[in-house]
Amino acid sequence: MVQNGQITLYSSPYSPFTHRVRIALDQAKADYTEYVIDFANKPSWYAEKINPIGKVPAITYGGPKSAPENPPPESAKINESLVILELLADLFPEANLLPSDPVLRAQARLFINAFETKAFDGFKDFFFMYVKGSDKSLLESLEALQARLPPTGFAVGPEWSNADSAVAPFLVRMDLMLRHDVGRYPQEEGAAILEALRGAKFARLAKYIDDIMKSPVFKTTWDEEINLKLIKLNPATQRK
Amino acid sequence: MVQNGQITLYSSPYSPFTHRVRIALDQAKADYTEYVIDFANKPSWYAEKINPIGKVPAITYGGPKSAPENPPPESAKINESLVILELLADLFPEANLLPSDPVLRAQARLFINAFETKAFDGFKDFFFMYVKGSDKSLLESLEALQARLPPTGFAVGPEWSNADSAVAPFLVRMDLMLRHDVGRYPQEEGAAILEALRGAKFARLAKYIDDIMKSPVFKTTWDEEINLKLIKLNPATQRK
Ligand SMILES: N[C@@H](CCC(=O)N[C@@H](CS)C(=O)NCC(=O)O)C(=O)O
Ligand SMILES: N[C@@H](CCC(=O)N[C@@H](CS)C(=O)NCC(=O)O)C(=O)O
Repeated sequence: MVQNGQITLYSSPYSPFTHRVRIALDQAKADYTEYVIDFANKPSWYAEKINPIGKVPAITYGGPKSAPENPPPESAKINESLVILELLADLFPEANLLPSDPVLRAQARLFINAFETKAFDGFKDFFFMYVKGSDKSLLESLEALQARLPPTGFAVGPEWSNADSAVAPFLVRMDLMLRHDVGRYPQEEGAAILEALRGAKFARLAKYIDDIMKSPVFKTTWDEEINLKLIKLNPATQRK
Repeated sequence: MVQNGQITLYSSPYSPFTHRVRIALDQAKADYTEYVIDFANKPSWYAEKINPIGKVPAITYGGPKSAPENPPPESAKINESLVILELLADLFPEANLLPSDPVLRAQARLFINAFETKAFDGFKDFFFMYVKGSDKSLLESLEALQARLPPTGFAVGPEWSNADSAVAPFLVRMDLMLRHDVGRYPQEEGAAILEALRGAKFARLAKYIDDIMKSPVFKTTWDEEINLKLIKLNPATQRK
């Protein structure tokens, strides 16, 4: 299987979900076009022609290169970041977005599942909504995620995989926001979480985040300064 | 890739999540051992050796056939029904648990995602918890699921796939419970939902549920009479 037609990624610079897909596209060395959807001024063709629920990321896949607002009629329109990561693994098997061993593939999916069904809510509830008690559930879910990491390396071994692409955009933003005291949480709770994450109990997770930030495939998709600016501008991170 | 070692399924007769895996194992013609976990009297080795969170389904995969309470040390322990479905698709490619076309595979995963992130909550909230307003959200989520079905056949075409294995256990139980007025919902709300699902608006979904029930791979895993008895005994389906 090889890339059989154009790929267009509909994105937002803010969006960690889009970031997942951008990492995987880069790892696959895919040839793709990126089109930024302006949330403040969403073009009506986006819901009509690309993603009925209006969110990013979405991709079109197949057919000749076309203007983003006029995707090839024969192209598939796929949303949901995790489904797109699986699709890219299927389209680019030689890029090893997932390991070839079935058990390691299952472990990658369990890692993603642990993030998606628990840590993501903790992340959202603490940084963007501030739900009381979310400091505890965030730390618990991060402990559970850490427990799935092998002693060294990335989520399922020495090589970067979709499991890392799925969680890295969130873990790195979390670290950044805590270091700069940005987010809706009370200042003292953020300081306590940062201290916990720097402590012995979270040494493995801290090393993992560090390895992520040093990884070439992550570095090419991340500009800390610009992201910090964007995050500070996001209405959802303003303290009340 | 072929089955490379034993498979043991840890199950419960009540559990629609286990049912997903049983269908896929049958479709794959896998050689496997099933061990029923008694929820009322959970063996302590289950959380210790198989699934730390104590739920079913889980499987062990690999190594020689062994007593279920003593899985081969080299076997992988995999929980989460949807991760197990993906694993079985990887282990038994010739059984086509997922289509080979990457876009159809993505569509199967989008179908599952639509169920898992919306319809499942509607199902649980209406039948087992009875949350006010869940009748509306259940119908809305079923409409969204129906919108993803092709004009005829199963979730992604004429052949049964993991997308069908993932939703069938729930859709069939829903139909059964409504027909027999079983579940925690108020009687009149159940009657209204049944009427809606029998109406023109849901004709495609009704045909899909009918096709599921007639499908050989589903029939061999389902005994309506026994399931009705089990569902009626479940404390969560008793009206208050
Ligand atoms: N479950 C979706 C979530 C996508 C999502 O929430 N995207 C956000 C940006 S991070 C979005 O598009 N928000 C804008 C909107 O809803 O209008 C995925 O994994 O792709
Ligand atoms: N997300 C899990 C859900 C599994 C689940 O909730 N299993 C239920 C039975 S349907 C269970 O084991 N309940 C018993 C318990 O929690 O003790 C999956 O997809 O496998």
